[in-house]
Amino acid sequence: VVFCTDAAVAGVHCDLDLVGPADLGWRASVATISDLAAMGADPWCLVVSVATPPDIATSEVMVGAIEAARLHGCPVVGGDLTSSPTAMVSVAALGTVPMGQAVTRSGARPGDAIVLTGPVGGSAAGLEALRRQLVDDENVARHRRPVARLAMGQVARRFAASAMIDVSDGLSLDLHRLADASGVGFVIEGFPVAAGATRAQALGGGEDYELVITVADAEALAMAFVDEGLSAPSVIGTIVADPAVRMVDGVEDQPIGWSHDVS
Amino acid sequence: VVFCTDAAVAGVHCDLDLVGPADLGWRASVATISDLAAMGADPWCLVVSVATPPDIATSEVMVGAIEAARLHGCPVVGGDLTSSPTAMVSVAALGTVPMGQAVTRSGARPGDAIVLTGPVGGSAAGLEALRRQLVDDENVARHRRPVARLAMGQVARRFAASAMIDVSDGLSLDLHRLADASGVGFVIEGFPVAAGATRAQALGGGEDYELVITVADAEALAMAFVDEGLSAPSVIGTIVADPAVRMVDGVEDQPIGWSHDVS
Repeated sequence: VVFCTDAAVAGVHCDLDLVGPADLGWRASVATISDLAAMGADPWCLVVSVATPPDIATSEVMVGAIEAARLHGCPVVGGDLTSSPTAMVSVAALGTVPMGQAVTRSGARPGDAIVLTGPVGGSAAGLEALRRQLVDDENVARHRRPVARLAMGQVARRFAASAMIDVSDGLSLDLHRLADASGVGFVIEGFPVAAGATRAQALGGGEDYELVITVADAEALAMAFVDEGLSAPSVIGTIVADPAVRMVDGVEDQPIGWSHDVS
Repeated sequence: VVFCTDAAVAGVHCDLDLVGPADLGWRASVATISDLAAMGADPWCLVVSVATPPDIATSEVMVGAIEAARLHGCPVVGGDLTSSPTAMVSVAALGTVPMGQAVTRSGARPGDAIVLTGPVGGSAAGLEALRRQLVDDENVARHRRPVARLAMGQVARRFAASAMIDVSDGLSLDLHRLADASGVGFVIEGFPVAAGATRAQALGGGEDYELVITVADAEALAMAFVDEGLSAPSVIGTIVADPAVRMVDGVEDQPIGWSHDVS
């Protein structure tokens, strides 16, 4: 059994002038389910706490959380509703994984390929479009209603991924986290950027919920993805032994991405 | 496996001018663990989300949550820290209970005795003492650092409790909830009030986390409590068939207690 939690706070993780209350709930569910995906877990169920001020419908937030949970096969089995000066959703998810097989951030080994399950930056580009009131932009849905990569995480686990992390806070920051946890470095040479997104949005935007997977045999992993009807992932670089080496496209990378400032 | 969640919001559930950040964390852990107690579950583990503004130490809130979890044998195994305009803690708890034996609110039957595990009103009296700056009052600790009745809930489950609820929002309100869920009424004749608390605090205060248990044989349950080294519970009334009958000390009871207003 794996057990994880994630919170979304209006004004911090999500701007309720740009997305609806149901989107806030959806995004919190997906952020938590994505933590299951990054371990290669099968989803089981969720509990959802919603706290809202009087002008925001608690039930709408909960409905968004429930819809996302249903889409991911991870039903909401309990919850708590309360009033609060700030709208907030906290989700806890249960998943299952065969004993001892959960993939962590800390198993990457020098020589492993670094694989990304899809293009990144779409959510950040969608947020920017909303700020410019371009509500028809192709990336808006990626910001409002992201999807976790459960099937891809499970295939990666079965095909011997050595480490995995979901891109929740930015490709750069999440790569650094994986490297820190594994005590290794990385060299990235090119990575897929979502159509309509900038390179900066792709590196620093986060909330795309694509998976970064490290694996000894990237070709076998790609074949397994295709065999299961999933789109082929991209090899974007290599894990190196020296933890001080953090290169992206030939330049030393400073971690950028969305960081929660906590005291 | 049982899975439940509860949130505590500063200014709504808890006044941070009167209690510390660690108390906020403690109280959120206990509120959630008490939900396990009310099902007769064995505690397993918790995840804790903490959101705080810059002037409140996230780590202190988390430490309080961890301390309470440890005291109850339910370790914190994961969490999420974030910034927020409002301090909030959301806790999700896992527990276990033999298949099909979880006690619910909905099983009370006419003729069952209504049993209360201890005096109520202490937490509300402690809050009132803090408001009057009487920090040495005997009830202050009951408000800051309540304790869930896990062992009592487990004994009640083994000794055939028909229904159970924890007094989280007030004896009156929680009795009405149990009666509503079970489709029955109740007649209460006397109940233990914590030393230093008023009858109104006992009926409406909540957050004492005593358990209301309904059971066919109250005497056998009391003996089981004493055999296990627990203080004997009090029989406070009887379940009746007519769901319209809601009597406390000879007077028709309107539900009073702490209610979350949600839109």
